[in-house]
Amino acid sequence: MKCRVCGKEANIRLSAYNTALCADDFLTFFERRVTRAVQKYHLIDQTDSTLVAVSGGKDSLSLWYILNRAGYLSDGIYIDLGIDEYSRVSFEKARLMADRLGRRIYRFSLPALFQKGIGDLSKVMRRAPCSLCGVLKRYLMNKACIDAGYTVLATGHNLDDEASALFGNLLYWKEAYLYKKSISLEGRGDYLAKKIKPFFLCSEREAAAYAILSRIDYVYEECPYSVGAKTLLYKELLNKIEVTSPATKIRFVKGYLERVKEQEARPDPERCARCGYPSYTETCNVCRLVERFGTGEAIRIECFEPAQATATPDISAKADAVV
Amino acid sequence: MKCRVCGKEANIRLSAYNTALCADDFLTFFERRVTRAVQKYHLIDQTDSTLVAVSGGKDSLSLWYILNRAGYLSDGIYIDLGIDEYSRVSFEKARLMADRLGRRIYRFSLPALFQKGIGDLSKVMRRAPCSLCGVLKRYLMNKACIDAGYTVLATGHNLDDEASALFGNLLYWKEAYLYKKSISLEGRGDYLAKKIKPFFLCSEREAAAYAILSRIDYVYEECPYSVGAKTLLYKELLNKIEVTSPATKIRFVKGYLERVKEQEARPDPERCARCGYPSYTETCNVCRLVERFGTGEAIRIECFEPAQATATPDISAKADAVV
Repeated sequence: MKCRVCGKEANIRLSAYNTALCADDFLTFFERRVTRAVQKYHLIDQTDSTLVAVSGGKDSLSLWYILNRAGYLSDGIYIDLGIDEYSRVSFEKARLMADRLGRRIYRFSLPALFQKGIGDLSKVMRRAPCSLCGVLKRYLMNKACIDAGYTVLATGHNLDDEASALFGNLLYWKEAYLYKKSISLEGRGDYLAKKIKPFFLCSEREAAAYAILSRIDYVYEECPYSVGAKTLLYKELLNKIEVTSPATKIRFVKGYLERVKEQEARPDPERCARCGYPSYTETCNVCRLVERFGTGEAIRIECFEPAQATATPDISAKADAVV
Repeated sequence: MKCRVCGKEANIRLSAYNTALCADDFLTFFERRVTRAVQKYHLIDQTDSTLVAVSGGKDSLSLWYILNRAGYLSDGIYIDLGIDEYSRVSFEKARLMADRLGRRIYRFSLPALFQKGIGDLSKVMRRAPCSLCGVLKRYLMNKACIDAGYTVLATGHNLDDEASALFGNLLYWKEAYLYKKSISLEGRGDYLAKKIKPFFLCSEREAAAYAILSRIDYVYEECPYSVGAKTLLYKELLNKIEVTSPATKIRFVKGYLERVKEQEARPDPERCARCGYPSYTETCNVCRLVERFGTGEAIRIECFEPAQATATPDISAKADAVV
């Protein structure tokens, strides 16, 4: 198996593209795919400032790294969910990357606000941890973005995440959710940040290979609450189809992207009467949660400056040359 | 595990219905589901005469058996695809059932018309056997139905067939095919028979259990050309989801049925200038095929009378009482 670009021994086979690449050419290939997606889908403008949602996993750390390498200088936001050792290690990895990039990282801590982690909070609320986590994360990341003056929130959702979520929505005909996802969702005024997913068309395996080959130190473990999650089963099944029919996942998600464009423009979301952020109800879920279970402290987001301003390896010139 | 109905030892667990049943009560349950589907979806009217597409497999033989038991007296049509031993055994099973029911069976033989089986025919045509088989079967079954004066063509497609086909169409966004399937498709005048699928909401496992418990002698082997078919993989994957989330398949297909109703009425299909049966092109695929590869003989459908007119076990009174 030879590298399609340089002819040397290949390190990774990419069946979806019917090709194989060596480590160096794979890194270039992957970065090019991401920067091209940023440009093609107008994810980040010259006037934008970007905040990356960083979990400490391979996807978000690779994304943060690539965006900075490509000249889209961006800071990070980390949500401490209070899942003991898992959260401690995750933040450690996130700070390591902040230092490597010489960028700022923000942190919001659930235990500081509720004196409880997501596990205990979900118990007292009698709600599944993953669904509660989703609500809180969406709210806090948006708030961090807006409050700290960033215009774009970038998340590390990859092709497998999108394909499995889409699959679940189709399987149960959840039309209300079906066309709410995209590679980019426009923001609104000063209360809803634009959201982008530059890895939308990059598989989980590619993102993992990129992280490993770039020596990115990330949390290998999945979140302990994700055990048995349906999306993990859907990912496994879609990967079985991918083995016999390569490129199925990317065709599935690209087909979706084409159709999502045809959807009508979204109306402006309603706003919470208390905090002013988007809400389907008069007072938003998070305001009610804080009122009921909060310690009385305001939602506070910490900011950590990088330990040292290291020089970020810059691929922006290269990326421009490519396109 | 006790039978939900009689409290005796259960023989089959039906997770999708959160129940378990003994052999006798399962047979009643299954027959009731089929006869209710026939009534609820208006599959067969009192004035209809029904022809069942019989392959010799568990689904079509069980269907033929149940329809006759329920008083929907119907004959069979068998297509001999010329797949050597497989075809020979399949027809044998079909005739056994014809004799058991005391009903007529029609046969159309591919080798008689082309001097070739489906395998050789697909080779000379450079077309996948399954796709060619689909075209020929659709045509010949409709022709048999119309020519012999039947008004309804019933096929044994089960829940797993429908769910896997639907899954494939969604995965590859085949919108052209997406809303063309249903539990019932209306006929047109004297050239297109009404098509019905009374097992649309019955799983493959249930149909197999019914066949075994009813001592129906069927062909166990899958068609040799189906090896590696994508639909088999899709069925396997959907069954994995079914294990963790029972009733997923039936919700998926029922959700589809609800949506298919909303589709616009189908326009009348165009007709072949030569044979008058439905066609997308001026001369239909089968007429062109016969012209190119046929022996010169007209399409001839044989008719076999049952060996003896046995009394069909009748559940029609029971079925009526149920609804």
